[in-house]
Amino acid sequence: MPSELETAMESLITVFHRYASKQGRSGTLSRRELRELMENELSNFLKSQQDATAIDKIMRDLDTNGDGQVDFEEFVSLVVGLSIACECVHGGAEFTI
Amino acid sequence: MPSELETAMESLITVFHRYASKQGRSGTLSRRELRELMENELSNFLKSQQDATAIDKIMRDLDTNGDGQVDFEEFVSLVVGLSIACECVHGGAEFTI
Repeated sequence: MPSELETAMESLITVFHRYASKQGRSGTLSRRELRELMENELSNFLKSQQDATAIDKIMRDLDTNGDGQVDFEEFVSLVVGLSIACECVHGGAEFTI
Repeated sequence: MPSELETAMESLITVFHRYASKQGRSGTLSRRELRELMENELSNFLKSQQDATAIDKIMRDLDTNGDGQVDFEEFVSLVVGLSIACECVHGGAEFTI
């Protein structure tokens, strides 16, 4: 049986592919797929996802190779950034989203 | 209720702190804490964790600021590296650990 950490790593991969496979290139997130992922999966973290400008900015920041698509490596940089931000806020204290 | 992705991010933080708080500095993993974490939480990923040399090498690689402790940012770089390695192998296919 996978550990809690292995389950978390599996979730990063499966959530990415659930959205990346919706349209166009199946291995990357388009702007629309990124928006859907953020609206559905990160709504507790990100309150500004309704704002099209915010999504554009996040897309530009994540899309480090500038191809208009977010690949898995670019996606995990978002997850890591959010996790580090949360860890800094919550530290070792009991953590609930 | 947190989404699957938010639960995964929460797991990264809680698993790190579960081991980091065991001894010494509570906000970082010592070599012993890192070994325990890898043995208990990443055994399906890493078969070489019984090898002290391998742990030393991973510790050196992760400890980018050279203080002999692995902080949360350094820890997630391990998780991300493993996730990317898995994603490259498994791609969009059904993924089970």
